Amino acid sequence: MYIENIESPRDLKQLQPEQLPQLAEEIRQGVLNRVSNHGGHVGPNLGFVEATVALHYVFNAPEDRIVFDISHQSYPHKMLTGRKEGFLDAAAMSRISGYSSPLESPEYDNFEIGHTSTSVALASGLVKARDIMGGTENVIAVIGDGSLSGGEAFEGLDTIAELGTNAIIVVNDNEMSIAENHGGIYRGLAELRRTGGKSANNLFRAIGLDYIYHEEGNDVQKLVELFRKVKDIDHPVVVHIHTEKGHGYTPAVTDKEAWHWNMPFNLEDGSPKQKGGSGENIAVMLGNWLFDEMKRDPKLVCIAAGVPAAIGFHPEKRRQAGRQFIDVGIAEEEAVALASGMAKRGAHPVFSTPATFLQRTYDQVCQDLAVNGNPAVINVMGASVYGMNDFTHICFFDIPMFSHIPNLVYLAPTTYEELIAMESWAVRQDRYSVAIRVQGFGCVHTDEPVDTDYSELNKYKLVRRGSRVAVIAVGDFFQKGEAVVARLAEHGIGATLINPRFISGADEELLTSLLADHQIVATIEDGSLDGGFGERISRFYGPTAMRVLNFGVRKQLYDRYDVEQLLRDNHLTDGQIVEDILAVDGQMR
Amino acid sequence: MYIENIESPRDLKQLQPEQLPQLAEEIRQGVLNRVSNHGGHVGPNLGFVEATVALHYVFNAPEDRIVFDISHQSYPHKMLTGRKEGFLDAAAMSRISGYSSPLESPEYDNFEIGHTSTSVALASGLVKARDIMGGTENVIAVIGDGSLSGGEAFEGLDTIAELGTNAIIVVNDNEMSIAENHGGIYRGLAELRRTGGKSANNLFRAIGLDYIYHEEGNDVQKLVELFRKVKDIDHPVVVHIHTEKGHGYTPAVTDKEAWHWNMPFNLEDGSPKQKGGSGENIAVMLGNWLFDEMKRDPKLVCIAAGVPAAIGFHPEKRRQAGRQFIDVGIAEEEAVALASGMAKRGAHPVFSTPATFLQRTYDQVCQDLAVNGNPAVINVMGASVYGMNDFTHICFFDIPMFSHIPNLVYLAPTTYEELIAMESWAVRQDRYSVAIRVQGFGCVHTDEPVDTDYSELNKYKLVRRGSRVAVIAVGDFFQKGEAVVARLAEHGIGATLINPRFISGADEELLTSLLADHQIVATIEDGSLDGGFGERISRFYGPTAMRVLNFGVRKQLYDRYDVEQLLRDNHLTDGQIVEDILAVDGQMR
Repeated sequence: MYIENIESPRDLKQLQPEQLPQLAEEIRQGVLNRVSNHGGHVGPNLGFVEATVALHYVFNAPEDRIVFDISHQSYPHKMLTGRKEGFLDAAAMSRISGYSSPLESPEYDNFEIGHTSTSVALASGLVKARDIMGGTENVIAVIGDGSLSGGEAFEGLDTIAELGTNAIIVVNDNEMSIAENHGGIYRGLAELRRTGGKSANNLFRAIGLDYIYHEEGNDVQKLVELFRKVKDIDHPVVVHIHTEKGHGYTPAVTDKEAWHWNMPFNLEDGSPKQKGGSGENIAVMLGNWLFDEMKRDPKLVCIAAGVPAAIGFHPEKRRQAGRQFIDVGIAEEEAVALASGMAKRGAHPVFSTPATFLQRTYDQVCQDLAVNGNPAVINVMGASVYGMNDFTHICFFDIPMFSHIPNLVYLAPTTYEELIAMESWAVRQDRYSVAIRVQGFGCVHTDEPVDTDYSELNKYKLVRRGSRVAVIAVGDFFQKGEAVVARLAEHGIGATLINPRFISGADEELLTSLLADHQIVATIEDGSLDGGFGERISRFYGPTAMRVLNFGVRKQLYDRYDVEQLLRDNHLTDGQIVEDILAVDGQMR
Repeated sequence: MYIENIESPRDLKQLQPEQLPQLAEEIRQGVLNRVSNHGGHVGPNLGFVEATVALHYVFNAPEDRIVFDISHQSYPHKMLTGRKEGFLDAAAMSRISGYSSPLESPEYDNFEIGHTSTSVALASGLVKARDIMGGTENVIAVIGDGSLSGGEAFEGLDTIAELGTNAIIVVNDNEMSIAENHGGIYRGLAELRRTGGKSANNLFRAIGLDYIYHEEGNDVQKLVELFRKVKDIDHPVVVHIHTEKGHGYTPAVTDKEAWHWNMPFNLEDGSPKQKGGSGENIAVMLGNWLFDEMKRDPKLVCIAAGVPAAIGFHPEKRRQAGRQFIDVGIAEEEAVALASGMAKRGAHPVFSTPATFLQRTYDQVCQDLAVNGNPAVINVMGASVYGMNDFTHICFFDIPMFSHIPNLVYLAPTTYEELIAMESWAVRQDRYSVAIRVQGFGCVHTDEPVDTDYSELNKYKLVRRGSRVAVIAVGDFFQKGEAVVARLAEHGIGATLINPRFISGADEELLTSLLADHQIVATIEDGSLDGGFGERISRFYGPTAMRVLNFGVRKQLYDRYDVEQLLRDNHLTDGQIVEDILAVDGQMR
């Protein structure tokens, strides 16, 4: 075992080139050991093992700087830079993240990275600063073919070409995004692969970059020769390597989309270690509803931006949806502009993607969509503390991001049935740009009738009229509101319960009516306090005698948090909320 | 005069091709009449006169759909689609906006457009919807060469190529952005111009698009022939036309950057009608300070994204700054990622651009910058009601956009001196990602000493300790706070006055101390109420007996507002604020 003796790239350099294939194989086994036990990104990491070994063999990190894109291919790098225990030792796996992280390795990881299409742009900054400060190190940006569809990648390439000094852009072309690639550039990339880089339709040369094609992207010794050729180059060069996604693990090669990311599995046959829970998945159920609605409504088109699985649109469903489904690649800006244009022309577009990735299209939501008021629908997926919890994938800052945008209606359903009612209304109406906050893990049902018309904006639903205390509980924390009201009853308080439904505006009439016989209003939301829904209510009552308590999540960076701990730390358990309300109530008696 | 008889493109079609040059000349005079009397975008509109006449002559708007980019070239279109009075009649000019606007012309303007690089992406939606709904119209997207540097344009081209059906992308190449172009793609465009479109380095073909080059972009008859060739084409095609920015008006051709946009001027010689006011311009003064600081600090680099004038970096200053200045083109995402990368490598990057354009890089501020905590500085320019007031250029939604982002320090200076103190601190420190809210028009000075160290985060400045009422006045509305406190004194209230300085956090110690002897806190900010600074304060005091009044601007779309009217409508005059405070004070006595 060579890997046992490698603590840093310096150790790697002690090996002879002919020993590298064995090391690569050991790293591949390490990656498989981690993902089969712990889950994680399988295909992209397996395909980039040889390139990573070659990069660290040829270049001198940390002086030379390697910047990854989205980090889905960073596991081999982690194994070579002091973090192999996260791959070899099951007990240590949760300590090491699946992303490039200076918090974890200030020496070898240049950036916290989890969003796509950023590596070249970030690297351009390292290049410019190096040049200003008189440095001579190599700057290497790694980017997958899938990430090239994002506008930031294009902007980065455009700038780095103009800078004109040393920069090595390794395009890891495994012929896949998360799902298949989408966009005109992929025909060009395919031509480049087919012609060994000789095709005239060369995106990189058109942007003004030097270019080398290399077919054997999983041959570590040839990659070493390749990288030696470009080391210390005096201008930017794209090194386009053709790799195999999932290389070396048959199930991952056979079904590349399914094996992009996986839960823990049995190495022998790829079968899942845990059977998929019997629990319902609200995102998939929403996707099913949209799929059915497509049959009723030929104008309905579901839009994805590289993550069709966000609503369970797996390959067969996409095939069946035909032209009523479109994946624009990892290009959220395009997805929103496309939706606005489609709505303008009378179609019924619905764009669904995780909340954290909607951050990438804030201006298009403001300008291309809401300023125009075109009736497109955006499903803000997994917007909850019960969602993705990695550092760069936090999904509960959506209310601050969207709720202040003029002319955008933002709805928060409390149950599956209400979600579908809101979705139906949003898809079928033609007056408003509508975003819908889709719940995180789990699925709550109701037997109560739900409203079918939301065209009277900012009308909250008074679920129970009480007095003294009113609880306004937003979206998937409505059930928490119910629990709080039940507990308050045990303390002799017959509280009012409100489902606001609209998180982009205040129901001033209802809020005003509470002034008559309420002393306390508590807002409860599954999201950020700063800029959140609750603050709107606090502002409304600010000049009055009403006491307002906002319950939500404090503004800070979060990483791989435990949900229950997060709730406790933020005074968000039912008991804590009741305690806080009673404390204020006590002061007022 | 042909123009007199043209109310719509239908009238235009009655002319013979040989009459079109005269019409074009009449339209050019109309554009000049407007901009010389009213101000506006001069160069880009003058260069696109012939192309617009040819487009409307050949295509059948409104059935065929023309989508403009940023709208800087939309004046001739407006003259041909029922709005010529905004060009021929000085009294009507302010009624017609300088932007594509369905509110103004639901028939001929497809989108409200004022941000860059959106036309192709929006057009892709029109294409997809047309195809789904069985339409046969032409979809034409117009985009300038400068706008091609934006990621959204690339994403749009990439998708439209894959859609594969009728789409005509007119690239209006006048060899300029607002300033000169920046980015590797411009070498490719220059090669295409030089070779008559035959260069192998063809960005559009590399993206999978058909392509036609046309040199005579200001020859209306040849343009008619050209557009006839592509009308009803069955696949996407880029029609790359070479135009002259400022065509037909010598001053605008001679100094293209200065004549991109202009205030009213004398047609004979281009001299300004009003002498540049003697008033100070805080943006230019900030630019001057940065320019001086560059000489002291060789690591300081000023970054622009296509708008170097935002800090007064006119050509001579850029030349003198040398490699300490970089313009990345209209590519805000790249600008922020570049800044983060530079800061990581030890340089001192400062990115300055108008607040409304920072919307285009929200995710990069969150992820590339703040998650990493790299010490770059972002100057949020013109963030005020006293700033750009066009529909798509509103600059006072910055606090909701930025203040909830974890790990981003957002500062609001109250005077020029405080701005420079904050800027010096931000540029020289190495711990925080810092955004600074730069005031709008005008410049206020102070003789008071200003703090030089802002490393103790969220520490508000207690300017005057009073009792009963506290006024927390943010940034450039601090002077309004002073006026309010002075007026309150006339009513016998010795109010406390606070300059919060930090708009990304609450000074809990100071706020708590006010509970002892204050009954009312009023926040005053030059920006949106929803998601604004004031709501943080309302939340803080929500559970207490403190009455809080938030003064700011209501969430809604704004267009070419009158500032004084806007202030009155939002209860933001000094007198209204005092009245509102006294009303609450009266209730409590």
